Amino acid sequence: MNKHNPLDNVRIVLSHTSHPGNIGGAARAMKTMGLDALYLVNPKSFPDAAADARATGAQDLLERARVCASLDEALAGTVLAVACTARSRDLAHEVLSARQAGPVLLEHALQGPVALVFGTEMSGLTNEETGKCQVLAHIPTNPDYSSLNLAAAVQVMAYELRTALPEVAAMGARPRALATFEDVEYFYQRLEKILVETEFLDPEQPKRLMARLRRLFARARLEAQELNILQGMLTAIRK
Amino acid sequence: MNKHNPLDNVRIVLSHTSHPGNIGGAARAMKTMGLDALYLVNPKSFPDAAADARATGAQDLLERARVCASLDEALAGTVLAVACTARSRDLAHEVLSARQAGPVLLEHALQGPVALVFGTEMSGLTNEETGKCQVLAHIPTNPDYSSLNLAAAVQVMAYELRTALPEVAAMGARPRALATFEDVEYFYQRLEKILVETEFLDPEQPKRLMARLRRLFARARLEAQELNILQGMLTAIRK
Repeated sequence: MNKHNPLDNVRIVLSHTSHPGNIGGAARAMKTMGLDALYLVNPKSFPDAAADARATGAQDLLERARVCASLDEALAGTVLAVACTARSRDLAHEVLSARQAGPVLLEHALQGPVALVFGTEMSGLTNEETGKCQVLAHIPTNPDYSSLNLAAAVQVMAYELRTALPEVAAMGARPRALATFEDVEYFYQRLEKILVETEFLDPEQPKRLMARLRRLFARARLEAQELNILQGMLTAIRK
Repeated sequence: MNKHNPLDNVRIVLSHTSHPGNIGGAARAMKTMGLDALYLVNPKSFPDAAADARATGAQDLLERARVCASLDEALAGTVLAVACTARSRDLAHEVLSARQAGPVLLEHALQGPVALVFGTEMSGLTNEETGKCQVLAHIPTNPDYSSLNLAAAVQVMAYELRTALPEVAAMGARPRALATFEDVEYFYQRLEKILVETEFLDPEQPKRLMARLRRLFARARLEAQELNILQGMLTAIRK
């Protein structure tokens, strides 16, 4: 497979960050562990002197940081998105510990770009945002004081990614052509439309049908060819 | 969750075994590691004095062994089936090492019955048989001499199951109500029928469409409620 360093295929995505200092701290944390690609979804203030100050030697990452208007834009082209989250969800995706998530991210990074997504300082990621990820990653903390700073969380995950490198190098990943984020999203859109047309899904009372289907296919990690089959099935069904 | 010993939920399934001595050897291997449930799919000769002789102190497992007319019968009620296989397949399922397969089997055994399936001494499992399993398990061997005896393979896997017990006990499995083998098989039958009716699947040239769909859903490990949703979708589409 690819001979490149899988860390180069890891995007750190910070969604709706409130404090620019945390963006700088995250950049520094990333650089210490060999990560380079910072994506910022609607940051409250960026560029910002507070970000530069906290980044110290990692301003180059801030200069190359990509500011995105939506999470979809930040995830475009990725084959796996992992949501870093403190809260557990009632309709939970696959949940991995930070340690387990490292090798999983790197394995997929051998196949294509992957993303590790962090929410706001106050409330983390929305359900809609985690719904676009396939896996949740959880950093274990003291149950009496679990308030992990955003840049500190990036540091822990970046460390886990770095330490997972030898393990992933030893595994000899099977080549799998995974479907990209935007192609899978397009499939969900078509599927939802057909489910509404066939009256299986009531748009007035959607319950959590699409969330459940997203969760199912998230676990499967669709391959490009499988997605082609599913799209072909939808087309055949609508004829 | 269940407080029972997950080893009690593990079935060892031997398909079309040629030599009854191997059945006895497998029973003995199972008992040494605390496994109890032996399922025999169309054994060439059973009961047989050669089986009793090799079982020594494990004849009780042979007496309770369930002889089945088909793999479907042996897998009825299971929530996970793992195929123990030496050959790799061109359209491969998820492949785990023996060591990785132990915890995966036990985690699922906390939810419901699981099966570890072994093929014939000469040719292993057929593609149709592995297609009914969700995961392949591979025992690493000397590439210059990989001819593992059937009872020896059962011994290694039983050992891995036993040594995985503490790890699984420590994990605190998330409760998931997984779909049973027969319900998933019924879904595949309905899906195939609809794909033929909509002319997406040409019965004269099926290629490997159903094998690919099986592989996709095998990776997802369908839950009972997800299967209900999928069945409901098929019903809505056919209206």
